[in-house]
Amino acid sequence: MDISAGEVFIAEVVGTALLILLGAGVVANVILPRTKGSGGGTLMINFGWGLAVFAGVFASWKSGAHINPAVTIGIITSGAEDFGGAAALPVTVGNTLLYLAASLLGAFIGAVLAFVAYKPHFDLEAPAAIKLGVFSTGPEIRSYGWNLVTEVIATFVLVYVILEFANTPSDLGPLAVALLVVGIGASLGGPTGYAINPARDLGPRIAHALLPIKGKGSSDWSYAWVPVVGPLVGGAIAGLTAGALA
Amino acid sequence: MDISAGEVFIAEVVGTALLILLGAGVVANVILPRTKGSGGGTLMINFGWGLAVFAGVFASWKSGAHINPAVTIGIITSGAEDFGGAAALPVTVGNTLLYLAASLLGAFIGAVLAFVAYKPHFDLEAPAAIKLGVFSTGPEIRSYGWNLVTEVIATFVLVYVILEFANTPSDLGPLAVALLVVGIGASLGGPTGYAINPARDLGPRIAHALLPIKGKGSSDWSYAWVPVVGPLVGGAIAGLTAGALA
Amino acid sequence: MDISAGEVFIAEVVGTALLILLGAGVVANVILPRTKGSGGGTLMINFGWGLAVFAGVFASWKSGAHINPAVTIGIITSGAEDFGGAAALPVTVGNTLLYLAASLLGAFIGAVLAFVAYKPHFDLEAPAAIKLGVFSTGPEIRSYGWNLVTEVIATFVLVYVILEFANTPSDLGPLAVALLVVGIGASLGGPTGYAINPARDLGPRIAHALLPIKGKGSSDWSYAWVPVVGPLVGGAIAGLTAGALA
Amino acid sequence: MDISAGEVFIAEVVGTALLILLGAGVVANVILPRTKGSGGGTLMINFGWGLAVFAGVFASWKSGAHINPAVTIGIITSGAEDFGGAAALPVTVGNTLLYLAASLLGAFIGAVLAFVAYKPHFDLEAPAAIKLGVFSTGPEIRSYGWNLVTEVIATFVLVYVILEFANTPSDLGPLAVALLVVGIGASLGGPTGYAINPARDLGPRIAHALLPIKGKGSSDWSYAWVPVVGPLVGGAIAGLTAGALA
Repeated sequence: MDISAGEVFIAEVVGTALLILLGAGVVANVILPRTKGSGGGTLMINFGWGLAVFAGVFASWKSGAHINPAVTIGIITSGAEDFGGAAALPVTVGNTLLYLAASLLGAFIGAVLAFVAYKPHFDLEAPAAIKLGVFSTGPEIRSYGWNLVTEVIATFVLVYVILEFANTPSDLGPLAVALLVVGIGASLGGPTGYAINPARDLGPRIAHALLPIKGKGSSDWSYAWVPVVGPLVGGAIAGLTAGALA
Repeated sequence: MDISAGEVFIAEVVGTALLILLGAGVVANVILPRTKGSGGGTLMINFGWGLAVFAGVFASWKSGAHINPAVTIGIITSGAEDFGGAAALPVTVGNTLLYLAASLLGAFIGAVLAFVAYKPHFDLEAPAAIKLGVFSTGPEIRSYGWNLVTEVIATFVLVYVILEFANTPSDLGPLAVALLVVGIGASLGGPTGYAINPARDLGPRIAHALLPIKGKGSSDWSYAWVPVVGPLVGGAIAGLTAGALA
Repeated sequence: MDISAGEVFIAEVVGTALLILLGAGVVANVILPRTKGSGGGTLMINFGWGLAVFAGVFASWKSGAHINPAVTIGIITSGAEDFGGAAALPVTVGNTLLYLAASLLGAFIGAVLAFVAYKPHFDLEAPAAIKLGVFSTGPEIRSYGWNLVTEVIATFVLVYVILEFANTPSDLGPLAVALLVVGIGASLGGPTGYAINPARDLGPRIAHALLPIKGKGSSDWSYAWVPVVGPLVGGAIAGLTAGALA
Repeated sequence: MDISAGEVFIAEVVGTALLILLGAGVVANVILPRTKGSGGGTLMINFGWGLAVFAGVFASWKSGAHINPAVTIGIITSGAEDFGGAAALPVTVGNTLLYLAASLLGAFIGAVLAFVAYKPHFDLEAPAAIKLGVFSTGPEIRSYGWNLVTEVIATFVLVYVILEFANTPSDLGPLAVALLVVGIGASLGGPTGYAINPARDLGPRIAHALLPIKGKGSSDWSYAWVPVVGPLVGGAIAGLTAGALA
């Protein structure tokens, strides 16, 4: 299978859109009022996000299934020559921007679809912070420095283990990433809600700012840099480490 | 292995019956009174339905494991030439009806078996809506338009990702569909209870109407078209999209 | 690998002992007082039993991993010529008794080990029915006929789907049975606690009768036939059905 | 792939560090105040530890993925000639010490990282026993003899089934160990919190003793020998048993 840069773009958009549709969806199901899953708990959210990755990776397999700029950066700093998948696009500035733009656009689209799927529930009364929580992450204890550290550590784990997948003779495919995300969410999601993906946080935050959400509050732009910078730094360190130890 | 249309029919009946027996069963376990699983929560229902698909797919592997008219429709609109599995029946009106009839009959049988398995619990006092809830889906906020949209989106995800499985070199088999259904349930099941399968909803609703259930109320036929039309539309769009992007 | 009848016996004893050690263990963890898992809920018990099967099947892989007389009976009624695994012992009365005896002995040993692992918690005050509940199943609503029907249906699903595994080109190995048991527990365990295995219920019940458990009550022998007869009938029907549809 | 003793050391350090970072992390998420996962329950902890093993095994695949002295000991007593993985280091006193030292160092590092990731939550008021509980195990009912027995049994199950993996034609790779640990935690973790790994308990306990944790209490050294001796004994018996039955 030989695919073009355009097909890579579409695959990454679709994959990231599915990721955010299902990821924002499970948060909506657990925290919005009068859903079937109201009060379903943290473990349900962790599994939901893991399986969101599962679906997103299937849909973007041929482009290498980045659906996350931290993965794209980690691949670059690991010293790889191409971005993986059937396209195996070479690592260049242009292709990097292609992957980043696709994930951001896909995340925006996914957030809009999640909003549409839960529209009657968004129309109910609920605290503005709850409604923002469906879209973007926020810390339980606001402390920009420590929040950043937590995102760096969690994303390091994500990207480092993903880069190790290639060295292991097992055939779990998308399931391996899915379970890894369930685990990172359960283990390291406690302080900040584990963005571990700049597009996952920024795309939906933009959607939150633009969408006509009833009773909408601030999009909390003062925090928005943390779940962008933290994952990029964590991904870069993971790539460097994997490259050094390979 | 070469199998006939009759064997396809039987495999789809058995597969869909297992799907609904286990799917309706987990709902019964969680919402009926005095069961071991009373109050087990949404995540338990999500896993139960996912594993119901798991069992159903194993039992209908040789016929391609549709066990869902939305999958049948999605295969048609994707432009495939046959219905998959060992039989690889060509896409014709007659074979389409064969798959649809089998899934509806299987769903009816599965619902009857779930009723039998939980008979002493159905004999207890419980709200009529709870007893219907074991059989068919219903929205938390009744809004036919938005409910339809939610079912379209959720079924699109199901059928699109299933059609992508073939493009991914992993060997998870029935587990992939099972996990996908757990994820869709957790993420997009909040508003309507994720029918995402016309047979899953209509077959058991007919069973509810016919069975001698103690304290039975309405079968809510005014809503019954939503979980039929929504999944068919979602499946058709998924097939068209997969076909266009292939 | 060529193994003897004696090695089959040992493998089935070890496998069933692990099954019951972990299965009775998770019930002890959830229902006995002052454990880490007190009140962990039904889904935790379902996963615990599924993963108990997972461990037991690994340990008895070479003997075909019956660890359940209902599976042994289902293999016989399906018309198979041997009992599977590396030994591939022919289906004879003697070999049948070998498998049955091994599973019963293993289940007894596993129950004793679970008792030992939770000894300080068994020494605490708790209702006698709770302490029996670690060992054997009991119905939520006592109705021998319906309880029997539930066990027949649940075991039919177990054995029928296991027999279908061989027809499916996936390589999940022990994970497939494990997930199937999680699903059956969640979906059909509500009324009776899903014995679905005569040895799983009878062996631990004998252990309960013999062990010096503080504050022990009746071993409820009047119910003991249900989780033996039901699974045997369900397994036999599953084998006949699988044989007829093969 | 041919790797050196130094690469084995690094792989085991990284693998064990990931294991403890995610394992201590999930406990922190569930038991520390004001996290997203506060009160997430035992099953969440069980899954978190299982997926911690999953990540750790991927990162140490080339060294055989011991990340646990009980596994190292079990390999020795099973009569194996080398320690597995791509290095296949021969079983010698020196290589044994290499594996043990790496796992202890890795566990220490992982605990420090978990502390850093949850720093703002450690700074809140909470009982000293809760803060210690993030690092090390402790029994619900202190009874050194029975606690030891529980750790021996649980570690026997872990190491015996791991040694059986090699005899089973399935390709689950790191997932098999991960699920086994989920199961052992759910089933046998009730009394002592399932150390089942001397490094998992001792490394973080040392970290607890050294780190500047606000409101820190005793590191409970009087119990510290149990989760070291119990797993070593359990692992050794498992190896002997597997060797005898092979």
